[in-house]
Amino acid sequence: MTAAELTEQIFKKKSFLCVGLDTDLEKIPTYLLSEKDPVFSFNKAIIDATHQYCVAYKPNLAFYEAIGVDGFKALKKTIEYLHSEYPEIYTIADAKRGDIGNTSRMYAKAYLEDLGFDSITVAPYMGRDSVEPFLEFTNKHTILLALTSNQGAFDFQTKNLENEELYKEVIKTSLTYKNAENLMYVVGATKAEFLQEIRKIVPESFLLVPGVGAQGGSLEEVCQYGITKNVGLLVNSSRKIIYASDSSNFAEIAAARAESLQVQMADELTKLSS
Amino acid sequence: MTAAELTEQIFKKKSFLCVGLDTDLEKIPTYLLSEKDPVFSFNKAIIDATHQYCVAYKPNLAFYEAIGVDGFKALKKTIEYLHSEYPEIYTIADAKRGDIGNTSRMYAKAYLEDLGFDSITVAPYMGRDSVEPFLEFTNKHTILLALTSNQGAFDFQTKNLENEELYKEVIKTSLTYKNAENLMYVVGATKAEFLQEIRKIVPESFLLVPGVGAQGGSLEEVCQYGITKNVGLLVNSSRKIIYASDSSNFAEIAAARAESLQVQMADELTKLSS
Repeated sequence: MTAAELTEQIFKKKSFLCVGLDTDLEKIPTYLLSEKDPVFSFNKAIIDATHQYCVAYKPNLAFYEAIGVDGFKALKKTIEYLHSEYPEIYTIADAKRGDIGNTSRMYAKAYLEDLGFDSITVAPYMGRDSVEPFLEFTNKHTILLALTSNQGAFDFQTKNLENEELYKEVIKTSLTYKNAENLMYVVGATKAEFLQEIRKIVPESFLLVPGVGAQGGSLEEVCQYGITKNVGLLVNSSRKIIYASDSSNFAEIAAARAESLQVQMADELTKLSS
Repeated sequence: MTAAELTEQIFKKKSFLCVGLDTDLEKIPTYLLSEKDPVFSFNKAIIDATHQYCVAYKPNLAFYEAIGVDGFKALKKTIEYLHSEYPEIYTIADAKRGDIGNTSRMYAKAYLEDLGFDSITVAPYMGRDSVEPFLEFTNKHTILLALTSNQGAFDFQTKNLENEELYKEVIKTSLTYKNAENLMYVVGATKAEFLQEIRKIVPESFLLVPGVGAQGGSLEEVCQYGITKNVGLLVNSSRKIIYASDSSNFAEIAAARAESLQVQMADELTKLSS
């Protein structure tokens, strides 16, 4: 999916919500555990109930790897289900990969080609030749970690690197990478004030903003500093939506949470056009 | 396995070689492709032939993920085979993971607990709370990317971060993490001159050195600057050993390559005791 098509979906659905599918066997309703594939059953119920309120889903691969072979199968079924039932949905493999060139190429193939995700999150520590293999795929995006939403972000990311904070250096340098037009960036909502700084460097790029919801961070602030005329934002919420309830109507309650965020987003989009 | 036990193995086998199991269906002998599980067949043959010359194996997970469910099964069979047949071997999941705390915990569980690897490589970009969940496991090691062996290492790692290069800041900061005694570091052999600098910060820690062989880098130089009285080095070679030949006796030829490195390492260990 192109960024323009994603933007079109955002305006159509009046939502820039991404739902994080961090599906954990210890957190899903216990009655699902007796099903053949509880992870997929949970994901399917969440997707069916929430898809009208969001434009993207983002499985974090750690949760699937933690279940081994069954986790990988559930991930595959989930992405195939999204492709067949909701092809208008944008998909993000939250993988945070990054390795030397020929190895990054294997990761890129696995997620962008074989599983057919629209995008993948990538860690920048290893630099250009660890990122460029992901950028080669047409109509796919590489979402580079810039400023993450956790406390550890202050260990290195916000420190000065040759007179500029590392996260800014990462974004600026990434703009010199081949096919840089396929880049998006992860920017934590817990640091909305940094969004203003980032918009000076990448005024148009899509930003994936985690950390609204369980990790804190206000949607209003994110929009105040981060929104562009084409929106340019995907705001993610995982646990606050998918684990809103562990009762048998968990999917309906998740949908209500998603809808409430969508309504706030619709408001923000109205401000944009006024 | 503890670091002391690893050191014991190094002196016993007169080797600090780690063989990288970067098993790629496009590079293994074609006659193996008709087997039920070609990746495991290849790994088993390489392990059976080379185990006496090395102390560690390091599957890079990208190569297994690129094959999907079958890749995960082959990885599992490989680690189980190592555990049952060669329990004295140290195992490294070359994953380069790192995510917010509760997510890193899932990765740690998957590789250190469920699959039972002795160690895992981790990317430092997200800081303390992305690394500490890996450090909680007793007798397991977290091998932090410090200075990698690729060209992109110069994008950020060697730049000054508040008057010190980022890779040094990463190592110094990591020493303040909880359970820091479980840390090792990835240091690329293509930059052996940096080893001297790193040894000033971590005079005793184990360093995993990739990039001897196909990626260049000299064993002698690595030892000159990096070896300690307890060795403190694991030198990895992947492609130069496992793809030394694509004929039916590929495993024997791989063994010869591994042996040649082992002989050089035995020499270096002799210098150490003299």
